[in-house]
Amino acid sequence: MTDRPLVRLERDGAVARIVLARADAGNAVSLAFCQAFHEAVETCAADRSIRAVLVRAEGPSFCVGGDLAEFEAKGEQRPAHLAALAPVFHAAQARLMTLSAPVVVAVNGAVAGAGLGLALCGDIVVAAQSARFTLAYTAIGLSPDGGSTHLLPRLIGLRRTQELMLTNRRVDAAEALALGMVTEVVADRDLETHAQALARRLADGPTQAYAVVKRLLSLTFDRDFRTQTDDEGEQIARLSGGADAAEGIQAFFARRPPVFNG
Amino acid sequence: MTDRPLVRLERDGAVARIVLARADAGNAVSLAFCQAFHEAVETCAADRSIRAVLVRAEGPSFCVGGDLAEFEAKGEQRPAHLAALAPVFHAAQARLMTLSAPVVVAVNGAVAGAGLGLALCGDIVVAAQSARFTLAYTAIGLSPDGGSTHLLPRLIGLRRTQELMLTNRRVDAAEALALGMVTEVVADRDLETHAQALARRLADGPTQAYAVVKRLLSLTFDRDFRTQTDDEGEQIARLSGGADAAEGIQAFFARRPPVFNG
Amino acid sequence: MTDRPLVRLERDGAVARIVLARADAGNAVSLAFCQAFHEAVETCAADRSIRAVLVRAEGPSFCVGGDLAEFEAKGEQRPAHLAALAPVFHAAQARLMTLSAPVVVAVNGAVAGAGLGLALCGDIVVAAQSARFTLAYTAIGLSPDGGSTHLLPRLIGLRRTQELMLTNRRVDAAEALALGMVTEVVADRDLETHAQALARRLADGPTQAYAVVKRLLSLTFDRDFRTQTDDEGEQIARLSGGADAAEGIQAFFARRPPVFNG
Repeated sequence: MTDRPLVRLERDGAVARIVLARADAGNAVSLAFCQAFHEAVETCAADRSIRAVLVRAEGPSFCVGGDLAEFEAKGEQRPAHLAALAPVFHAAQARLMTLSAPVVVAVNGAVAGAGLGLALCGDIVVAAQSARFTLAYTAIGLSPDGGSTHLLPRLIGLRRTQELMLTNRRVDAAEALALGMVTEVVADRDLETHAQALARRLADGPTQAYAVVKRLLSLTFDRDFRTQTDDEGEQIARLSGGADAAEGIQAFFARRPPVFNG
Repeated sequence: MTDRPLVRLERDGAVARIVLARADAGNAVSLAFCQAFHEAVETCAADRSIRAVLVRAEGPSFCVGGDLAEFEAKGEQRPAHLAALAPVFHAAQARLMTLSAPVVVAVNGAVAGAGLGLALCGDIVVAAQSARFTLAYTAIGLSPDGGSTHLLPRLIGLRRTQELMLTNRRVDAAEALALGMVTEVVADRDLETHAQALARRLADGPTQAYAVVKRLLSLTFDRDFRTQTDDEGEQIARLSGGADAAEGIQAFFARRPPVFNG
Repeated sequence: MTDRPLVRLERDGAVARIVLARADAGNAVSLAFCQAFHEAVETCAADRSIRAVLVRAEGPSFCVGGDLAEFEAKGEQRPAHLAALAPVFHAAQARLMTLSAPVVVAVNGAVAGAGLGLALCGDIVVAAQSARFTLAYTAIGLSPDGGSTHLLPRLIGLRRTQELMLTNRRVDAAEALALGMVTEVVADRDLETHAQALARRLADGPTQAYAVVKRLLSLTFDRDFRTQTDDEGEQIARLSGGADAAEGIQAFFARRPPVFNG
C-alpha cells in the first residue's frame, strides 16, 4: 500500500469530485482501487450536503479496465480474486446510480472494460474528443462485467451491444455520441472545466427533483406504464408542495432564473 | 366554465379527431382540460365505428404542459390538485395507447412537459418543422409525469432521456426525428393535411391487425421472447382466418390494392 | 416432398452453415421449410464441435416471409396451419438465439415478414447493399410474428417499430444500419466471403466467453441491475479460471494474438 490514495474524494462547495488517481496504471481496476472507489462513493452517499458528483480521472486514460497485472499475478487464485472484486465494483456502481445527487462522468483517452461500465453509469457523461471506447473482455477470453450487459442495451440498443461485445470494435467519441453512449463531446482541453461547470450547475438545481428523475429512470425498464405513471403522479404531487417548486413557478412568472435549494 | 370545450371530439367518417382547443393558453393542461381530454378518449374507446384517431392542437403550440397559472393559484393545495389531476391524465393516456384504433398525433410549436408525454403516446407522431420539444419539469423544480419516464427510454434510449430530463435542453423537429421521438417531420403548412391523410389511410387499413400490433408492442418490454412469440403465433393464426387476411392474400396474388374492412 | 432439401446444413471446420435453399420461392416460409430450418438449428445445438453458425440464403432474396401460396391453398384451414407453423418457427429462433455458438446472419435482397424476424435473431447481421427490409404483415391483414415484436423494439426503439409495423415502409440497407437493425453493410459481391470470414474468426475466438455474452444479453431486459451484475460477476470469475483467459492474458503481455480453444 502507498500513502497516495488510488481514488481521491475532493469537495468544491456542494460538488464532490471522485478522482481516479492511479494514472501510472491507466486507472486499472485492482481490488484496492475497487475498494477505494467504493469507499468514495459510500462517503458521497452518506453526506447529504453533496448535491452533485463529478467522476473524473487523472492521466491520459479514464480507465483501461481490470488490472491485468494483478490478474496475472493471482494465477490459480484468479477466480477467487474476481469473485471478491466484482461484487465490490458492482456495489459501488449501484450506489453511484442510486445516489440522490446527479452524477457527471468526464471521460478521456482509453475507456475499456470495467472502465466503460463505470463511465456508463453516470447520469451525464461528457467525453473528450480523445476518448475511445472498447469492451475488451472477450479479447482476453473473459465475459463483460461492470453492468455493461445491463446498461449498454438500454443506451445503444441490442445490435450495437452484441457487436461491441463480440468483436471489441473500438468506438470513438463522435460515434459514442451518435449511439447514445455519451451525452456530449467536448475538446480535450475543455473537458475538466466543462464537466466541472456542469456539475456545479446541477448542484445549484432542484436536486430533489433530480433524485426523482434518477429513481424513476432506474426503475422504468422493470415496470409497466400503469405502475410507472402512478409513481410519477405521486412524486410530482409531493414535489409540487416543496420550496423548489414554489420558487420555480414564481420565477417562471417573474421571468427570472429560479434559485433552488434542493 | 365556458361554453367552448377545451378539447373537441370531431368525426370525419371512421376517423375521430381529438382537437386540443385551448389555444389561448397554449393548450396548457388544467384539471378541466385533463377531464375534457379524458372524456374525448373514453368516447373514442366506446365507439367501435372509429377506426383511427388523430390528435392535433389548435393554435401556435401543441401543448405547453401543465397549467402553471392554475398551479400558482392553488397555493398550498397544489399537491392535492396534482394528486387529482395526474391520475386523470395518465388514465387518458393509457386508454389512448390501448385503443384498438391506431393513433396519429400531429405536433407543432411548443411541445413541453405533459404535452410531450401526450405526443409520445401516439402510434405515429407527425411533427411540423416548427415543433420543439422540452421536458421542462425540473426547470421549475418538478419531476416528469405524463408517462415520459416510461416512454422516452423506450423511444430514444436512456442516455438522451437522462440528459433531457436533467438539463431541459430543447430538441428541434429534425433531432426529434433522428432520435426516434417522432415518426416523421413535415412542413408546417402540410401538417394537418398530411396527418389527416395518414389517419384516413390507417382507417382504411386492417384495423384488427393494427390492434394486435398495438397490444403486442405495449406488452413487449414486460415479456420474454417465449411469451411474446407464443402470443404472436396465436394472434397471426386467429387473424389468418378473418376477412382482411383473405382479402389481403387475394389482392396480393391479383396484384391489386386490398380493400380491408377491419 | 423433393429430394432437394429446403434448408441445407453444411460444415466448414468449426463453422456450420445453415443455407436457406428454397431460392425458387424466395425462401418463403412454408411448413416444410420451417421444419427443415428447425431441424438444422437443432442439429447445430446438439453438436458441441460447432463454434460459430452462419445463416445465409441462396437466390436473389434472403427470405420473402410466409409462403402465401401455401396460405392461399389452405383456405379455411389457414388458422390451424399457422397455429402449427408458428411455434415451430419460433422454437427454431429461440434455439438459434440460445446456441452457445455465435450466429452470423448474411442477408440480401428482400427480407420480409418472418424473414425479417429470422434475420434479426442473429448475433451479428451482415447486410448486402441490395438488402431491403419490410414487415409486410399488415399489408395482407396479418399481425407480425417471428419475434419481430420482441426483437425490433430492443434493436431500433419503439417509434420506428410502430411505424414499420403499421405502414410497412421499406427500409434499405443503409437505413437498417443507421437504425441498429443490422450490424454492418457490405457490397453484394462481398457478402458471402465477408460473412464467412467473420464466422470463421468467431469460431477461432473464446467461444465460452461468447456464450456468456449471448446468455447475459438474452436475459438483460428481464432483469434489474443487481441481478444482472451478480450474474456478470459469477461468469467472469468462472471464465477467469479457464484456459482461454489464461491464454488471453499471456498473449496480452506478450503482445501477440491469442490462440483460443473455446
